Amino acid sequence: MTTGHTSPTEHRTRVASTMGKARILMEAMPYIRRFAGVTIVIKYGGSAMVDPELQDSFAADVTLLSLVGLRPVIVHGGGPQISKAMARANVEPKWVDGLRVTDAETLGVVQEVLAGQVNPSIVRNLVGHGAKAVGMTGIDGGLLTAEPRDERLGFVGRVTGVDTELVGGLLDQGVVPVIAPIARGEDGSIYNLNADTAAAAIARNLGAQKLIYLTDVEGLYEDHDDETTLLSRLVVEEARELLEGIDGGMRPKVESSVEALDGGVRQVHILDGRIQHSVLLEIFTPEGIGTMIVTPDWTPVHVG
Amino acid sequence: MTTGHTSPTEHRTRVASTMGKARILMEAMPYIRRFAGVTIVIKYGGSAMVDPELQDSFAADVTLLSLVGLRPVIVHGGGPQISKAMARANVEPKWVDGLRVTDAETLGVVQEVLAGQVNPSIVRNLVGHGAKAVGMTGIDGGLLTAEPRDERLGFVGRVTGVDTELVGGLLDQGVVPVIAPIARGEDGSIYNLNADTAAAAIARNLGAQKLIYLTDVEGLYEDHDDETTLLSRLVVEEARELLEGIDGGMRPKVESSVEALDGGVRQVHILDGRIQHSVLLEIFTPEGIGTMIVTPDWTPVHVG
Amino acid sequence: MTTGHTSPTEHRTRVASTMGKARILMEAMPYIRRFAGVTIVIKYGGSAMVDPELQDSFAADVTLLSLVGLRPVIVHGGGPQISKAMARANVEPKWVDGLRVTDAETLGVVQEVLAGQVNPSIVRNLVGHGAKAVGMTGIDGGLLTAEPRDERLGFVGRVTGVDTELVGGLLDQGVVPVIAPIARGEDGSIYNLNADTAAAAIARNLGAQKLIYLTDVEGLYEDHDDETTLLSRLVVEEARELLEGIDGGMRPKVESSVEALDGGVRQVHILDGRIQHSVLLEIFTPEGIGTMIVTPDWTPVHVG
Amino acid sequence: MTTGHTSPTEHRTRVASTMGKARILMEAMPYIRRFAGVTIVIKYGGSAMVDPELQDSFAADVTLLSLVGLRPVIVHGGGPQISKAMARANVEPKWVDGLRVTDAETLGVVQEVLAGQVNPSIVRNLVGHGAKAVGMTGIDGGLLTAEPRDERLGFVGRVTGVDTELVGGLLDQGVVPVIAPIARGEDGSIYNLNADTAAAAIARNLGAQKLIYLTDVEGLYEDHDDETTLLSRLVVEEARELLEGIDGGMRPKVESSVEALDGGVRQVHILDGRIQHSVLLEIFTPEGIGTMIVTPDWTPVHVG
Amino acid sequence: MTTGHTSPTEHRTRVASTMGKARILMEAMPYIRRFAGVTIVIKYGGSAMVDPELQDSFAADVTLLSLVGLRPVIVHGGGPQISKAMARANVEPKWVDGLRVTDAETLGVVQEVLAGQVNPSIVRNLVGHGAKAVGMTGIDGGLLTAEPRDERLGFVGRVTGVDTELVGGLLDQGVVPVIAPIARGEDGSIYNLNADTAAAAIARNLGAQKLIYLTDVEGLYEDHDDETTLLSRLVVEEARELLEGIDGGMRPKVESSVEALDGGVRQVHILDGRIQHSVLLEIFTPEGIGTMIVTPDWTPVHVG
Amino acid sequence: MTTGHTSPTEHRTRVASTMGKARILMEAMPYIRRFAGVTIVIKYGGSAMVDPELQDSFAADVTLLSLVGLRPVIVHGGGPQISKAMARANVEPKWVDGLRVTDAETLGVVQEVLAGQVNPSIVRNLVGHGAKAVGMTGIDGGLLTAEPRDERLGFVGRVTGVDTELVGGLLDQGVVPVIAPIARGEDGSIYNLNADTAAAAIARNLGAQKLIYLTDVEGLYEDHDDETTLLSRLVVEEARELLEGIDGGMRPKVESSVEALDGGVRQVHILDGRIQHSVLLEIFTPEGIGTMIVTPDWTPVHVG
Repeated sequence: MTTGHTSPTEHRTRVASTMGKARILMEAMPYIRRFAGVTIVIKYGGSAMVDPELQDSFAADVTLLSLVGLRPVIVHGGGPQISKAMARANVEPKWVDGLRVTDAETLGVVQEVLAGQVNPSIVRNLVGHGAKAVGMTGIDGGLLTAEPRDERLGFVGRVTGVDTELVGGLLDQGVVPVIAPIARGEDGSIYNLNADTAAAAIARNLGAQKLIYLTDVEGLYEDHDDETTLLSRLVVEEARELLEGIDGGMRPKVESSVEALDGGVRQVHILDGRIQHSVLLEIFTPEGIGTMIVTPDWTPVHVG
Repeated sequence: MTTGHTSPTEHRTRVASTMGKARILMEAMPYIRRFAGVTIVIKYGGSAMVDPELQDSFAADVTLLSLVGLRPVIVHGGGPQISKAMARANVEPKWVDGLRVTDAETLGVVQEVLAGQVNPSIVRNLVGHGAKAVGMTGIDGGLLTAEPRDERLGFVGRVTGVDTELVGGLLDQGVVPVIAPIARGEDGSIYNLNADTAAAAIARNLGAQKLIYLTDVEGLYEDHDDETTLLSRLVVEEARELLEGIDGGMRPKVESSVEALDGGVRQVHILDGRIQHSVLLEIFTPEGIGTMIVTPDWTPVHVG
Repeated sequence: MTTGHTSPTEHRTRVASTMGKARILMEAMPYIRRFAGVTIVIKYGGSAMVDPELQDSFAADVTLLSLVGLRPVIVHGGGPQISKAMARANVEPKWVDGLRVTDAETLGVVQEVLAGQVNPSIVRNLVGHGAKAVGMTGIDGGLLTAEPRDERLGFVGRVTGVDTELVGGLLDQGVVPVIAPIARGEDGSIYNLNADTAAAAIARNLGAQKLIYLTDVEGLYEDHDDETTLLSRLVVEEARELLEGIDGGMRPKVESSVEALDGGVRQVHILDGRIQHSVLLEIFTPEGIGTMIVTPDWTPVHVG
Repeated sequence: MTTGHTSPTEHRTRVASTMGKARILMEAMPYIRRFAGVTIVIKYGGSAMVDPELQDSFAADVTLLSLVGLRPVIVHGGGPQISKAMARANVEPKWVDGLRVTDAETLGVVQEVLAGQVNPSIVRNLVGHGAKAVGMTGIDGGLLTAEPRDERLGFVGRVTGVDTELVGGLLDQGVVPVIAPIARGEDGSIYNLNADTAAAAIARNLGAQKLIYLTDVEGLYEDHDDETTLLSRLVVEEARELLEGIDGGMRPKVESSVEALDGGVRQVHILDGRIQHSVLLEIFTPEGIGTMIVTPDWTPVHVG
Repeated sequence: MTTGHTSPTEHRTRVASTMGKARILMEAMPYIRRFAGVTIVIKYGGSAMVDPELQDSFAADVTLLSLVGLRPVIVHGGGPQISKAMARANVEPKWVDGLRVTDAETLGVVQEVLAGQVNPSIVRNLVGHGAKAVGMTGIDGGLLTAEPRDERLGFVGRVTGVDTELVGGLLDQGVVPVIAPIARGEDGSIYNLNADTAAAAIARNLGAQKLIYLTDVEGLYEDHDDETTLLSRLVVEEARELLEGIDGGMRPKVESSVEALDGGVRQVHILDGRIQHSVLLEIFTPEGIGTMIVTPDWTPVHVG
Repeated sequence: MTTGHTSPTEHRTRVASTMGKARILMEAMPYIRRFAGVTIVIKYGGSAMVDPELQDSFAADVTLLSLVGLRPVIVHGGGPQISKAMARANVEPKWVDGLRVTDAETLGVVQEVLAGQVNPSIVRNLVGHGAKAVGMTGIDGGLLTAEPRDERLGFVGRVTGVDTELVGGLLDQGVVPVIAPIARGEDGSIYNLNADTAAAAIARNLGAQKLIYLTDVEGLYEDHDDETTLLSRLVVEEARELLEGIDGGMRPKVESSVEALDGGVRQVHILDGRIQHSVLLEIFTPEGIGTMIVTPDWTPVHVG
């Protein structure tokens, strides 16, 4: 008989060790129930997109969300990779108001990095974990239309239209769309978009319930010079007030958060992407990490 | 500002404590992927159906399976409850060949207990955890048709026909069917069925991949007098050989297992229902509990 | 040649005898056309549920309705059977305000009788006539949620929520749902409901056009001491006025009728269930039987 | 109070009179169950198409069949009306082998009568009874393609192709197709078809279970000179043998019947269309009228 | 080697000759894009329906529209053919207010010509070009209901109801409906309708975007005595003003056009049906032919 | 009156000029009918992908195909752009057997150019003409799986698996998929594929009827040194024989053509992409351009 036996000791050990696992799976259940069929837009960027272990844990998280019935959508940036590619190509970046100036040469590099390097790499990782992921840019299916944001910035666009028919169709097929923030201008040119803003625009137009920003900070601080003032939860009005004191990369995130919440999104999360599985834990466990901005009528998931 | 803050210490603790959880959720992922859309028939009985804590853990397990995309079907027995009800009603049970003789009076009690007591109680627990459960008997929608098994046994039936159209329709709607083992005879009478056999017949006709027997033993023993011979896995041919040495309540289980595997079911599990969450752990963790009987072409889930 | 011949006489007789049949089938046609796809809730109770011939004629009626395209839903009571079972079990029933007090012991009996005895018996009769019937309680699929009606009455519930998703799905599959008036409380307990009230609540929430009460009287009397005052038709306002003079078992029927008509049901019928095929005749023939309560805008089926 | 009363006498009379009706509706039930969703092709012709009362009873029958879930298809001829129109237009009909010779002038008259007179009149009667009827010729949607049957006969066609996609789509929408036996030739000309043959070809290609010929005789006789030899039932082989002795208008009916049965149709009926409601009675009552030709494996509807 | 060669000269000639074709196909593209899925009702009449070459070019046009994704609906008249048939039958036509008086005899001729001659001929031509065409009258599927227009006119009807369920279903299947302007009266009689009016009523109820009248004039003239005043485009208010000066056959066209535009149709075209392919060119080329009447908010197709 | 007039001269000119257009649209009709719903895979490369006018005419062609109901799929290469990018980046290309050796550095450039430069540019042009285009690589949705082709070539892959579920779903939504020839290896690495081979593999697995290679030559020559031997049509067996004498870039095209035809594709075309609208003309006009390789049972489109 080629089949195995289990000794009594082995059996007892095995049973004992599995009890803890069951508790944790059970803990996830109310969240799975609550978020079944819900669309969640995740702005993916920072360390989580650069560090191989974090890349892997992110791809695993998104795959699990998709498998248990959520509808995740990824919008990614590519800042560090673009800077590196520009250095390699000896193109000197120019900045105005914290926004990269994008001349034709730069746009070529941006597009190659976003659509040709970052996007396929994310898709490959997701496909590797078993997700049905599809990479695309905002040009595909007419998803994003743009106009120049500021003449001084060149091919930097502001979103003027969002057509989610294609993305909605993909989500209905169980696909995870991975979107590079590039749009077709009404003038036929290509425009580079701020990924934070693009993610918020897509979330609003898809009727997403959650918008998640993966960042390299622990969250939003009431006083950003005092690490004891990390905010765990605030309502949209409070975020609006905080805006005045915020600048740098966090500003477009908070501005977009406010717009997303005004436009029907129910919760925005600013998460520390340097923590493994931060997306999974945010969604499936009661503790929560980072800062959550909510509409006034928000109520927590009932865990019972 | 009414919103909360998180102190640095609190933040670190929270992060640390969640890492373990992520690992366990990740561990479940290959199984969720593997079993998405798969029908699993569970014969529910024994202590798991009597002890309130086990009832609750079972209902939670089945609800979670349903939420993450499996299609569980419950077939339950009711032996202990029937015995108790018969004692209360001063009806003396008669047995032939380990099968209860079922005269008209007994049938009344059996039906009341199965359909009127046990079945609604299981449904209530499942609904309480958030599953879309529906109780039914084998009469409903013409699911099970029967003929007398043996004239001496009275209204004890042998399954002669299975029509899974209704159950399939319920599964397509995300419903968890909970089935009492009662059938309509071709003669219009009602028949009491052996739940183990009924579960196997339903599993075969539904094209289920797994059939799980919840029992009050640790599994199947190669030598049932020697607890060191607990079998963890065997193929159907080996089970067929073992059959000669098995009697009592385990015999119909093993016989039905062999029939189910011959009829297209890919794995049968004999699980210890006295362990909390045994169903969940069997399906979602690599360790496995109890005894698994498989077809010769079976291969384990690839975890990676 | 093994095939039969028909003599001229035989032929003429056969033709003559069938003419009358055609007239009657034709008479049913406008009603079939009128009620195609229409949901009809039938409160089943009284003699019609106890007498074997009436049971059979009722099951035949409902099967025919289902076959020709109506969507019948059965809600049943079980008063006499419950009383008998309680007597057998030596449980003394208690009554408050015409409503049975339901302690835990009584609830056990009620549930066993309704779900374990009456419900499967109705389903079996329907299946026997060819209907795709499915038995269920108000617990199944979260159909009915309840709260205690009156602390003095114990586990007697008042309906607080109706979720018809499951029942609607069954009707779409051509299934006849047979519902026992038991609900899950928001506190997790089980509650016994008044079947008249439950039927009205289900009718309202399903958007039923007709609600039929099968009773053991000829209908509603304007003066219930004067059998010459049997009402054939009245509008809802008149029923509301009559309510003051009605008590006993008829009161919840008339109260529920008024609520159902206020909630969108178009006709309520109080039929004499002691007459064979009363349901069929009510729906498919112009004569009508018993009392019909209608909304003010009601018009008769155009027969032409 | 504007509402009506029913006196006790009136009530009793009403109840008594309805009992017989119930019996007849019940008698129809097994046939309704048996033929639900079944396609039935009816060749409509002879007196039933000329006499106003018979026209009305036919339209009522077909409407009822459609309402209770069968899928009737009408194929009509127009012999008498064509002869009358040709007389009116002073066109002398020519016949070869019992088939009308159809020159261009005759074809014009034939087409006008079939598509312009007979077909709309049938549709109007059906619509008047509440059926969703649609008139069409074999040209519509490419239903029938033809080639010349015999050069001597002119525009008389033989069916060479049947495309039932359109008719199937109409049946799926609950429509009753009414078809004039005219086809488009592969050469682009229009051809007149024998309606008996066209009906059989359509029945075969639609997968119809029944094909009914409405005629002006009582049925098929074993010896057509002896009215005591009216055949009530025969199998296809017997019909094939009878063919040799049959000529006149009955010959194409029996030939087509044999072809239809060979091609998958399960029963062919030759009914006396001079009897009111003969179609209804044939389908919904056990007696049967006229002659039925069946495949060898045919079994009667189980009535019970 | 049986395969062919192309000489260099041949190759160059072939390439050159195809360039012009490509330009024209490209020119049609914006119109195909613009009208994809759009319903277009075409009143077909006059020379286009009598001249064989024009019949062929019309059938080709409609087939192409259907193939590239538009949803054309044909409503035809039959004036000249009816007159000819009445002459042949020695029936003297009577006219009141430019409308044919229709007694029972005339109605017979009208119906035979429209449904029996004109309609099948149009369908045959369409089927010959590859369209899935279906002929029908306004009686079919209860499409048009009518009442007498004027007692003096006999069976001349005014549309009182339009039920487009059937036509919509046919369009969804890719079918081209060809409709003869005959309706069933509420009194069960048949009525002859003005085809211009019927086309407008159908266009309005189908939600058509375009209604096209094929006529035997070049279009609408501002001053109908001055051929230099041919109007290429006007808005509905201007058409309303023009109405006073218009009589003859053009009057019902303009009246119906105004009603159609008031009822949601966006453009009405009065086209010269004597020009081959006038329908195709109207829809697929920028030039336009004849007169277009539009709602005030109309804008031309963007070609670019 | 703000509306325009048309002078008689203008009218006549307009009419005359449109006649030619109609003829050409009509000429396209049999091809539109023939190819409705048919999947066509186009390998896009060479001058057609570099020259702006040809880019535009190609995008217009594909958009028109999509609009009139075909299902085009684009697979593109990127040879010239890759060479340019590698020169810019000072990476020296290495070749083995006419295939580029792809080390990790080269792969980075290849991927950036294909997915980040060429693919979005094609999508933008298609979206600009009104097509619903979506860019993707063979990694997306697990479309293409690969293994190393030859150890000496590095990350050059051979297709080992094709999963067209995603592409099929996109085509069903009317989307034009634009595919870069990059695959995920079973080892998790990314592989660069030969676009000709990838196009053939996708065509075979999608059940495409046509596979078109856009090249920079006029077609296939029987003797490639003699320009008078340009082949217009040959069968697959003849292509197989020719293979021996072919090398350079044409060899993988002809090899892949043979494999595609063996795998169910019905026609392969080798077209001169330097001619504007060559795709459109190939599909919609009778002349044909370049070389067509067919299966032995191929027959030309019937134009009638």
